[in-house]
Amino acid sequence: MQLLQDRIRKDGKIKEGNVLKVDSFLNHQMDIQLFEEIGKEFKRRFEGEKINKILTIEASGIGIACVVAQSFGVPVVFAKKNQTKNIAGDVYTTKVESFTHGRVYDIIVAKEFLGKGDRVLLIDDFLANGMALEGLAELVQLSGAELVGAGIVIEKGFQQGGDLLRSQGIRIESLAIIDSMNEKTGEIVFRD
Amino acid sequence: MQLLQDRIRKDGKIKEGNVLKVDSFLNHQMDIQLFEEIGKEFKRRFEGEKINKILTIEASGIGIACVVAQSFGVPVVFAKKNQTKNIAGDVYTTKVESFTHGRVYDIIVAKEFLGKGDRVLLIDDFLANGMALEGLAELVQLSGAELVGAGIVIEKGFQQGGDLLRSQGIRIESLAIIDSMNEKTGEIVFRD
Repeated sequence: MQLLQDRIRKDGKIKEGNVLKVDSFLNHQMDIQLFEEIGKEFKRRFEGEKINKILTIEASGIGIACVVAQSFGVPVVFAKKNQTKNIAGDVYTTKVESFTHGRVYDIIVAKEFLGKGDRVLLIDDFLANGMALEGLAELVQLSGAELVGAGIVIEKGFQQGGDLLRSQGIRIESLAIIDSMNEKTGEIVFRD
Repeated sequence: MQLLQDRIRKDGKIKEGNVLKVDSFLNHQMDIQLFEEIGKEFKRRFEGEKINKILTIEASGIGIACVVAQSFGVPVVFAKKNQTKNIAGDVYTTKVESFTHGRVYDIIVAKEFLGKGDRVLLIDDFLANGMALEGLAELVQLSGAELVGAGIVIEKGFQQGGDLLRSQGIRIESLAIIDSMNEKTGEIVFRD
C-alpha cells in the first residue's frame, strides 16, 4: 500500500534494536483518515470472505480494528491482556510472550462473543515475532470459529512471525512488509 | 441519547457492587454502528468548539475515540498506562488510581503529541469516580493545551466523578447518566 509506505518513510523513526517508531500516526497518536484508507484496502483484499467479526488485541490494535470494521460493517472484539473484575465467567484464554514488555501474559476473550458460525478477521498494527497474532489465532480455534485471515498494517519481514504463521496455513495480508531498515542511514526497504 | 439508553436497558447487565456490564456492545465486543451514532452526537454537542485533537486512555476508550474522531476529522492520542520500551524521551505523566484493578498506575503521553495550540476533547467509555478522566485533564493542563471538555458514553451519576470534575469547571457531556440501578430488579434510572 503506497500511501502507507510513503507515510512510514516520511514519519517513521528507526531506533536501536530494529525498533520502528510510528507513534506519530499509528500507535500513540492515530491518523484516523489513514486508518480509513487502511480499512478500504483490507476490505478490497478480503472481499467476498463473508467476515462477520473482527478480533484484535489491546491496546494499539483497537483503534485500527474499529475503523477497519466500518468498511466491513461488523463488530469488533478485543482480547484483553489482564483478567479484570468486570470479565467474569466463561472465557477463552491462552498465553502470549511479549518481547516489548519482556513478560508472558494471558489473553482473554469472553466465550459469548466468539464461537461457531463466526468468520473472523484478525487485525493488528504490527507483526514481528508473531506471538500476539498466534495467540489470537488460538483463541479463534478454541472458540470453534473460522479464521479467515489476518490484516496487518506493518510486518517486519526480517522477523520470523509472518513466515511462521503463513506456514501454518494462515492467510496474512500485510499492507507494508519491511525487509530491512538501517538505523544509521534511515533507509527502509519494503518487499514488493 | 435515547438509542444508547435503550441499548443499555436491553443489553446491559447489572452486577453486584454497582457494576454495569456493557461488554456486549461497548468495551469488549464493540458495536461500531452505535459508535458512529455516538460520534455524531458528540459532534452535535461540541459543535463550533474547534477541537483539533481527541485524547483518550487505553484500552476501552480507544475504539470509541477513533470512531468519534471521524465525526470531528481530527487525530486521536491515547494515554498509555505503562511505560514501554517504545516510548522513550519526553513525556507528560501523572498518576491514576484504578478501583477496577485495585492499584495506582502512571498514565503517559509523549510531549510531541500534545501541547500549546491544541484544543482537546477527552473521550472515554465510563465516568464513575473520575480518576482516569481527572488524570487525562491533568495531562492536558501539563501540556499547555486547552481542554474543551469531555465526552463520556456512560456516567454513573451516583458516583462522585461527574460532580467533582464539573465543580472544577470541566465541561462534561455524558450520553447516558445513570442515577440508580437495581441488581435485583434490573431497573435502571437515567437522569433526564
